[in-house]
Amino acid sequence: MGLAKQSMFDVIKDDMAQLEEELLAISQTPTMLITQIGTHLVKAGGKRLRPALYFLAAHSREEKVENLQSLAIALELIHMATLVHDDVIDEASTRRGIPTANVKWGNQMSVLTGDYMFAKAFALVAEHRCQKEVLRSLSDVICSLSEGEIIQNSEAFDPKQTEEEYAERIAKKTANFIAASCELGAIVAQHSEADIEALKEYGYCLGMAFQVTDDILDITASSEQLGKPAGNDIVQGMVTLPVIRALAVSEHKEELAEIVATRGMSADMVKRGLELIKATDAIEYSYNRVDEYLNRAKEVLPANLPADIRKTFEDVVDFVGKRNF
Amino acid sequence: MGLAKQSMFDVIKDDMAQLEEELLAISQTPTMLITQIGTHLVKAGGKRLRPALYFLAAHSREEKVENLQSLAIALELIHMATLVHDDVIDEASTRRGIPTANVKWGNQMSVLTGDYMFAKAFALVAEHRCQKEVLRSLSDVICSLSEGEIIQNSEAFDPKQTEEEYAERIAKKTANFIAASCELGAIVAQHSEADIEALKEYGYCLGMAFQVTDDILDITASSEQLGKPAGNDIVQGMVTLPVIRALAVSEHKEELAEIVATRGMSADMVKRGLELIKATDAIEYSYNRVDEYLNRAKEVLPANLPADIRKTFEDVVDFVGKRNF
Repeated sequence: MGLAKQSMFDVIKDDMAQLEEELLAISQTPTMLITQIGTHLVKAGGKRLRPALYFLAAHSREEKVENLQSLAIALELIHMATLVHDDVIDEASTRRGIPTANVKWGNQMSVLTGDYMFAKAFALVAEHRCQKEVLRSLSDVICSLSEGEIIQNSEAFDPKQTEEEYAERIAKKTANFIAASCELGAIVAQHSEADIEALKEYGYCLGMAFQVTDDILDITASSEQLGKPAGNDIVQGMVTLPVIRALAVSEHKEELAEIVATRGMSADMVKRGLELIKATDAIEYSYNRVDEYLNRAKEVLPANLPADIRKTFEDVVDFVGKRNF
Repeated sequence: MGLAKQSMFDVIKDDMAQLEEELLAISQTPTMLITQIGTHLVKAGGKRLRPALYFLAAHSREEKVENLQSLAIALELIHMATLVHDDVIDEASTRRGIPTANVKWGNQMSVLTGDYMFAKAFALVAEHRCQKEVLRSLSDVICSLSEGEIIQNSEAFDPKQTEEEYAERIAKKTANFIAASCELGAIVAQHSEADIEALKEYGYCLGMAFQVTDDILDITASSEQLGKPAGNDIVQGMVTLPVIRALAVSEHKEELAEIVATRGMSADMVKRGLELIKATDAIEYSYNRVDEYLNRAKEVLPANLPADIRKTFEDVVDFVGKRNF
């Protein structure tokens, strides 16, 4: 979605431009294959949402903060490393329309390059002055990401899931990382503890809203809008919020539960499943949740932010609320 | 080889016993599958060579050092994480006679559990007082390990390799990690910079000797001794020191080069390759290298070590020199 290229990020556009250069520079290593794979991953682009939110938080006090780039790079390296590992795990062949590293260089190289990128991220932290908090936050993020993926896999095709379990899973998978990105920016800006917590909470709510929206769009958007088949989550056994709601209120809940629990379901079953979900209030119900998260994200923003930073934080919230692709 | 259970490690046996308990304790997580896989990996055992060398170095000054366990755990977690990822990459089905995690739980869980363990290792570092040096050392180790594996893969089946390239590769793959284990112990013991470097060099030389010995045994030992088919490295295209030497001096160097470059070679080709190598001075030549590394390991040990610690460091050297399995 090229979020970072949106004009709403004008206030940090110099940081974002420099980040692209830094990411390319850090991909230059003495080992040719790592350089090739790293450069491929950087050039494949991405939203750069985590560094963007980190930069915003880091600029949210009047004092100028030096050396913002190293943690921005670390955040994006961790994100790229998890994507490379995810693509190996999912045997994905393209991401953002570009061949994945596992297709171009094989699983071995992809797993190892991911490990290398994790380690490189921590090497950057070693040079940083707020080491302890940063280190704890980033290691928690990676633990959370892998736990989230593992839980998602072990709960797949199980229609007996609660909204709380879903919320915990997407927090681990998505929201905690977005929260940590905001938190780290607030830490380097030397905000008060209360404001660090507030910006972290903003990130958490934004991340939750983002993931629930993703899960809704998988059901409502056309395959063209998504760039992948609609209902893909259902095929993969992912029991998302709209599915959980529909399983609770549908007149055909037994039939839907059976579809959800089927591994290797036919296209007709997917279609029927989507119809059953859309016949309930599940989509509206889920969008209400999104709105709650988005409202809370705006509410918790610290009172004393510079006007342009506050506006950007709010614009990001509105952007997530409006997106339909 | 159960090195850590050898009586030569008597001087650190309490630390080693506690480490086993700590490793089991840290494997207990809120996520059931991570707990299962972690416990499986810990119970599968292993040499615990890295923590053992770290403990030795940490006890190598008279002053008592508090809280040694956290970095010992971190070292072993990183080692276990790389083994889990290696087994996914190599599609290995057993390790130390026990089914691998990828066979029991699949590649996805194995990749993610490895990531989780890397992150957990860094979380332990966050609580440590010598953060900066430790963090730099451990992130360098993981970068080095993944680079080593990547280089090994990209150089596979290429008979045009030099001894220098080989040395660089096994340093990255094996020796740097052993070196870092000794270095970290020396750091927490607050040794002088010179002695930290000396203990690191000891670990480096020990690690190099260990790996060259491994590579020799792949050629000279019986399949029964190895617990895997002899000549396995050649089958996998790994051009090790004895092979490089034989390629330089053999009367049949063209034939050997052809064998080394063959993917999916027949059992007869492997047998012929092993014969050609053993007909040269390659084994003796490689053992001379091992001896050089081992002698140097003993030489560089700091002068002022406690007698029992020095003796143990020397016993480890002798053990590596004598091993034939």
